[in-house]
Amino acid sequence: MDRTAPAEHPIADVLAARWSPRAFSDAPVTRDELHSLLEAARWAPSSGNSQPWRFVYALRDEDPEAHARILGVLDEYNQVWAKDASLLMISVAQLRNEKRELRHAEHDVGLAVGTMLVQATTLGLHVHQMGGYDADAAREALAIPEHHAPVAAIAVGRLGSPSLLPEKLAAREVAERVRVPQAQFAYPGRFGAPD
Amino acid sequence: MDRTAPAEHPIADVLAARWSPRAFSDAPVTRDELHSLLEAARWAPSSGNSQPWRFVYALRDEDPEAHARILGVLDEYNQVWAKDASLLMISVAQLRNEKRELRHAEHDVGLAVGTMLVQATTLGLHVHQMGGYDADAAREALAIPEHHAPVAAIAVGRLGSPSLLPEKLAAREVAERVRVPQAQFAYPGRFGAPD
Repeated sequence: MDRTAPAEHPIADVLAARWSPRAFSDAPVTRDELHSLLEAARWAPSSGNSQPWRFVYALRDEDPEAHARILGVLDEYNQVWAKDASLLMISVAQLRNEKRELRHAEHDVGLAVGTMLVQATTLGLHVHQMGGYDADAAREALAIPEHHAPVAAIAVGRLGSPSLLPEKLAAREVAERVRVPQAQFAYPGRFGAPD
Repeated sequence: MDRTAPAEHPIADVLAARWSPRAFSDAPVTRDELHSLLEAARWAPSSGNSQPWRFVYALRDEDPEAHARILGVLDEYNQVWAKDASLLMISVAQLRNEKRELRHAEHDVGLAVGTMLVQATTLGLHVHQMGGYDADAAREALAIPEHHAPVAAIAVGRLGSPSLLPEKLAAREVAERVRVPQAQFAYPGRFGAPD
């Protein structure tokens, strides 16, 4: 099955190849790969170079207890498939540093993760982010301090077979990839203006 | 001058090559390039595929009035250099759609822009985002509606000569690129844990 994005304008192969699977194999993400993912995030730009992104991570093969701890804060419907992802993370935004409030922190976390996704694709890894997790439980289980906000749960691994997923989820692995057209989100000169 | 990120772990060339200049040449960003940038953003993942990113853009060669309108909402210290960028945009987050509050909207805007940056690098373009602009003025000048928040100003263009910048800004074009080490933002198992 070809999951390449059906782009209407040319985009880089590394971007068109990215998608968010639920079927992960049990092949491990290595520590070297983890560090390359984090390094990609590290070189992202941020407001005033504040670098407000934080990541709590667990490689299942290295620390199964930590992996289970992160898995445990996910909503049940995500645990079903995310358990197979070799690497789990919670992204965290630093909302304030010693100098100032970092009002762009969540945006900058997203930007760093956008960069990380490209590195993942380059390494043959896939990433699936989730909003479906218990942020309070994550704060407690992962000791996330004040002035920091859990943002997203992130599953990383190698593609597995959809046949191992519950039927309804397996169907989503091959469903058509859809996005609204550019005219619905990009406007010349004024919000809502037609192209 | 080599601005390649001094990465401590291997990252993709397209990521290491990215940086945020202030010296832009007057060479135009083409409409085809603009659409490729937007298309890269379009295929980013988002919470529930909500696609909460919006962009108001202006190509100077195509609509100098709109370009001036976006330039006009930037803080003075950004106008000094951003005026030379062929393409100016304001990114906007849709905070609510017909179904629900989109609490990850700003994060997802960041993620889409992270993807756009990679497309820009692929096209030989550079991008410099700014928090230094007047969000209220942007809302007014660009007709940004309720339930939507202006996020960042974005300058895109081709590299120019730092010699055209004020001395203090020119120096920043060649300053060392710095980031905190991974141990200061990535933690195994629990926030703050040593690697």
